[in-house]
Amino acid sequence: MTTQRTARAFQLAARPHGFPTADLFTVDETPVPEPEPGTAVVENLYLSVDPYHRELMDEGGWELGTPLEGRAIGRVTASRAPGLTEGDLVFHRAGWRTHAVVTPGQDGVRTVPSYDGVPLAAHLSILGGTGLTAYVALTRTLEFRAGQDLFVSAAAGGVGTAVARIARLLGAGRLIGSAGTPAKVARLTGELGFDAAFDYHDGPVGELLAKAAPDGIDAYVDNVGGDHLEGAISVLRDHGRIAWVGAISQYHSAHEPPAAPRNLFDIVGKSLRLEGVLVRDYGYAQAELEALLVPHLQSGLIAPDVTVVDGFERTVDGFFGMLRGENTGKMLIKIAD
Amino acid sequence: MTTQRTARAFQLAARPHGFPTADLFTVDETPVPEPEPGTAVVENLYLSVDPYHRELMDEGGWELGTPLEGRAIGRVTASRAPGLTEGDLVFHRAGWRTHAVVTPGQDGVRTVPSYDGVPLAAHLSILGGTGLTAYVALTRTLEFRAGQDLFVSAAAGGVGTAVARIARLLGAGRLIGSAGTPAKVARLTGELGFDAAFDYHDGPVGELLAKAAPDGIDAYVDNVGGDHLEGAISVLRDHGRIAWVGAISQYHSAHEPPAAPRNLFDIVGKSLRLEGVLVRDYGYAQAELEALLVPHLQSGLIAPDVTVVDGFERTVDGFFGMLRGENTGKMLIKIAD
Repeated sequence: MTTQRTARAFQLAARPHGFPTADLFTVDETPVPEPEPGTAVVENLYLSVDPYHRELMDEGGWELGTPLEGRAIGRVTASRAPGLTEGDLVFHRAGWRTHAVVTPGQDGVRTVPSYDGVPLAAHLSILGGTGLTAYVALTRTLEFRAGQDLFVSAAAGGVGTAVARIARLLGAGRLIGSAGTPAKVARLTGELGFDAAFDYHDGPVGELLAKAAPDGIDAYVDNVGGDHLEGAISVLRDHGRIAWVGAISQYHSAHEPPAAPRNLFDIVGKSLRLEGVLVRDYGYAQAELEALLVPHLQSGLIAPDVTVVDGFERTVDGFFGMLRGENTGKMLIKIAD
Repeated sequence: MTTQRTARAFQLAARPHGFPTADLFTVDETPVPEPEPGTAVVENLYLSVDPYHRELMDEGGWELGTPLEGRAIGRVTASRAPGLTEGDLVFHRAGWRTHAVVTPGQDGVRTVPSYDGVPLAAHLSILGGTGLTAYVALTRTLEFRAGQDLFVSAAAGGVGTAVARIARLLGAGRLIGSAGTPAKVARLTGELGFDAAFDYHDGPVGELLAKAAPDGIDAYVDNVGGDHLEGAISVLRDHGRIAWVGAISQYHSAHEPPAAPRNLFDIVGKSLRLEGVLVRDYGYAQAELEALLVPHLQSGLIAPDVTVVDGFERTVDGFFGMLRGENTGKMLIKIAD
């Protein structure tokens, strides 16, 4: 099934200060392992690189000199695990490497269901942790209802595009997004169907948002923090809800977090709710997500929004590109089909 | 029933900058009014002075040169309102004055139920808006459960003492409070039954709280904001809940709000929830509050925690004293019995 004899894995040699550099990463090469009883060896096909990986590069995160980790999809090449057979597709969290040893039932390892007409990349984007984050932020944290007006920041990113797709299916009213380039803004109001969008470089975020949402919003999915959060607090209606997913604006400055919103006390005056969302708490909703989305992926109503970088050796490039916002939709590394 | 012929009402002559001063207040004197059809005239017995009154003194709040407002309890002296009879006790929101004209069913006007053995002051403290705030913050916002560990700031104040009383009835685990004087701290761990308490002047709030809550907390009722909120975020356990009621630390500086907590993003990392509480949304829970508390007020298990300033002419003094934290429990002005 595979001719690869060498397994490669990215490691971190030293911790970054600010934006990481390529020289911090090394590739460790070992022979492809044989499976121990109860495990299977997987050759990875797609790797996910995510904003939270940047945080894990700081003190207290990943260990130096060991393979990095991330969501991945691979194909079983050898198995001594009950229920896993050569050729099976497996989702697991041992990414940033060409081969992984997985144990069914541990660390979220699961076989990927085969849905006719659904591309593999969907399982690491709108059907993966990214899509699940969007889904539970909307349905659990925000208790989002048809007709409600929603703002999402970093709207052209993995979570942002998934939020937009799912919010539309749930009957969203006005959908407003922010992004970091004019091209992305055009895609938001174009193929992604946003009612309004703005480039956050074009002025104070609060003013841009107030203009895009002149009648206010009911709910906000925050991928950014900082000024975006402050702006959202200011346009949220009474009893508005914020699902806080990420704060990409501050991942490079964990030791000097930004002054948080100056209008934070408006949370009381407007009876707002701000709640953090960690997708690891919501694994139970995976089947629900697939039940909602798979028919629409099959019909073509929804496409997985992905930017794919080809080649394992370009994993770090893809990661940097994601940090710089070069992707639209989820950033993936493709190793093989 | 009354021999008063003159009604007096406090007005604001100009808006304060920072801590207000006595010369900003004037007393307007008019003849005691006669009731119009559908209204009743009430002679006030107790007035409530509250932290939020300070906010209403800023631009956009109370109008200058008109009587101020606040919760009050009075006795009907003349009535042309169906259902109100001379001698009835009435709760209303036209305080800061000796006499008020009330319309049943409007602006929260309601007759005060007569419970044997329950002092009148309870209806403006633990059975009033202060107690209702504490009750809904615990039962609605925090979904507080027996055995949970709770921190409350400004714990010796009106809301703080009510939170402590009610949390104990709900089976609180470890109860931790902060206050602003050693005497108050002693009362917290003494008659109010806190497990730990600290004077927030004794060092960085985060450090004092971490020492008082070495195993963390499940829930926090925030009356203060700023450093207290930051400290609470830092000791809250995963999935912890914050009911944000007030921010007395910033009421004198509305135009220069403090930099919000530097650790705000931990709301995501720990899946915390921060929600603002406005008691006006929860009037429907008043009967529930009374059903819970009245038997314990009658048995003496709970006493209304109040500091009472005697005399209408001392209303402003009482208000300033409350702002300076001179009260333990709810600060009330007593005009008559």
